[in-house]
Amino acid sequence: MPLRNALLQRIHQQTKPPGSLGRLEEIGLRLGLLQASLTPAIRKPGVSVFAASHGIAAEGVSAYPCAVTGEMVGNFLRGGAAVCVLARSVGASLRIVDAGVDAPDDAAWRALPGLYGSPVARGTSSFLRGPAMRSEQCAAALKMGASEVNATIQEGTDALALGEMGIGNTTSAAALCAALLDVDPAAVTGRGTGVDDAGLRHKQTVITESIARHRPQSPPIKTHAASAARYWLERVGGFEIAALTGCILAAHRARLPVVIDGFIVSTAALIASRMDPECLEVCFFAHRSAESGHGIVLEHLQASPLLSLGMRLGEGSGAVLALPLLQAAARLVSEMANFASAGVSTAVPVDNPVMLQV
Amino acid sequence: MPLRNALLQRIHQQTKPPGSLGRLEEIGLRLGLLQASLTPAIRKPGVSVFAASHGIAAEGVSAYPCAVTGEMVGNFLRGGAAVCVLARSVGASLRIVDAGVDAPDDAAWRALPGLYGSPVARGTSSFLRGPAMRSEQCAAALKMGASEVNATIQEGTDALALGEMGIGNTTSAAALCAALLDVDPAAVTGRGTGVDDAGLRHKQTVITESIARHRPQSPPIKTHAASAARYWLERVGGFEIAALTGCILAAHRARLPVVIDGFIVSTAALIASRMDPECLEVCFFAHRSAESGHGIVLEHLQASPLLSLGMRLGEGSGAVLALPLLQAAARLVSEMANFASAGVSTAVPVDNPVMLQV
Repeated sequence: MPLRNALLQRIHQQTKPPGSLGRLEEIGLRLGLLQASLTPAIRKPGVSVFAASHGIAAEGVSAYPCAVTGEMVGNFLRGGAAVCVLARSVGASLRIVDAGVDAPDDAAWRALPGLYGSPVARGTSSFLRGPAMRSEQCAAALKMGASEVNATIQEGTDALALGEMGIGNTTSAAALCAALLDVDPAAVTGRGTGVDDAGLRHKQTVITESIARHRPQSPPIKTHAASAARYWLERVGGFEIAALTGCILAAHRARLPVVIDGFIVSTAALIASRMDPECLEVCFFAHRSAESGHGIVLEHLQASPLLSLGMRLGEGSGAVLALPLLQAAARLVSEMANFASAGVSTAVPVDNPVMLQV
Repeated sequence: MPLRNALLQRIHQQTKPPGSLGRLEEIGLRLGLLQASLTPAIRKPGVSVFAASHGIAAEGVSAYPCAVTGEMVGNFLRGGAAVCVLARSVGASLRIVDAGVDAPDDAAWRALPGLYGSPVARGTSSFLRGPAMRSEQCAAALKMGASEVNATIQEGTDALALGEMGIGNTTSAAALCAALLDVDPAAVTGRGTGVDDAGLRHKQTVITESIARHRPQSPPIKTHAASAARYWLERVGGFEIAALTGCILAAHRARLPVVIDGFIVSTAALIASRMDPECLEVCFFAHRSAESGHGIVLEHLQASPLLSLGMRLGEGSGAVLALPLLQAAARLVSEMANFASAGVSTAVPVDNPVMLQV
């Protein structure tokens, strides 16, 4: 019997009305298929947070100064950030990946344990004024994401939540989505860390002007989704977004379940899906963030996130919270009794006379 | 400074944009208030599942035979049911409370460890033909719920997820909701464990006829919400629903956070809130179940559940899955760094010239 049918039969015979565990049944099935097992399990969940600085942050698109990216990396490494607390709470190991942080005062944290990655450069260039990165930088960032997947697998990680940090990166993600989905920048531009009305209008203007600047005159890239994705990633992307893209593609090759966080990581999943549509097989969308634009990406990817808690922090905070749900879904498939073994009666046939008496 | 203000100030100064943790911030605040602490924590979560048999089940309102209630208690005690797997997955201790199970063949499981409670009777009477229970039986069930809360607190439980098992209990809950909320029985009657269209119509008819039978001619009970709640609980309730009601009321007296599962436990919360409106302070609504009727109770209680996974199993399965979210929310309040201690820059003032340049 094919594995899918065997898993479905197993789930169907467990002591519960058919379908009554809702989304957990679908997740358990997917985890069984990815692990090629009738008894899937997530024993060692991990979180990798990719951080990078953005040249576009100098254009006044964020409520926070650029320096916060580096300062928050220090906070991650010292365990004080939300994602650190959440990782401890759910029992997940945490790795911080420097994908290209510009932090002149980084001596205080560069030597701390838990920092990985080989930064591509000290942040991207402002894409309002030129390409965000060079092609070889993009390649290096994609490769860094793949290396991170391999490193976590070496550590025994069997489900990886993905997060990010980078002041300015909702601007980059919004530009990527507007360009790749061909939608009005206003539809995918939100307040990020919390700009006010004037800041939001400015952010939209920056994105609109940036896309106009980079849009190719002759449209060869329209003909090939992967090329277009790579083109826009280099022009308006970020190093952490490129690394996350490489991470998702590598996770698919390794059949490693990855948990997709909010707007930024979902945008990386969008780009990865343009490079290899099948990579969505390993993607579990954690939550619907409050950042406008996320809903549009999710809809495009036909993704239904598990949580909707009004979060808009990033860092992987939503993805980490979904890990216990994946663990539970796997254990249900593996450990629940079935009607026969538990000695529990099955449903009364629907044509049973008991049902018809009134 | 009052505790609420101190908690709000603490949460506001933590290293994240204000409000960016969404619902988790509200939950953390509530847990801090209940525990009277700036550093709330849930260290020992528990699950109590109340089981009882229903006379109404003999009227053909369920897709499963009445015997399943007792059979499932055996399955709970042997660890094979969904709630057992989920409790293990999230690290919660599990107690099964016999509130009135009718199981002639119970020798196989009565002696197993993990069974508590002092059953009121071997199931309720069919409320299509008379009152479900006598007044002193209702009192005993309410008291049993309070005893269970005290027992779990003795064990060190600091957050209690509530679940139930009882073939026929969605019929009882629907009758209670229709009577107490004065809505059309059809609006709160769902398929429960999975009756077909004919079964659903039959179930609605049974509920409509039962309410008509028990509705008092003179309406003194309308004038007092608590009396009306008690009246209908005795007439069309169940022993596990009464015990859950007593449990919620006692949890409020002890300031113990309780996690409310689906339609049945939410109905107990509705009844408890009629007896003591302030008891909702300790109630955390876990999930929006797929059982129609649950949404109406939630709306009435102005409750926004944390999860929406299409579950409709009961047993406390949704409540258990919300425990990690409560634990995480408490830890965030307790353990996150603040901007000053972490050396992270705060937001740029909104009138900063950087924001206005285009």
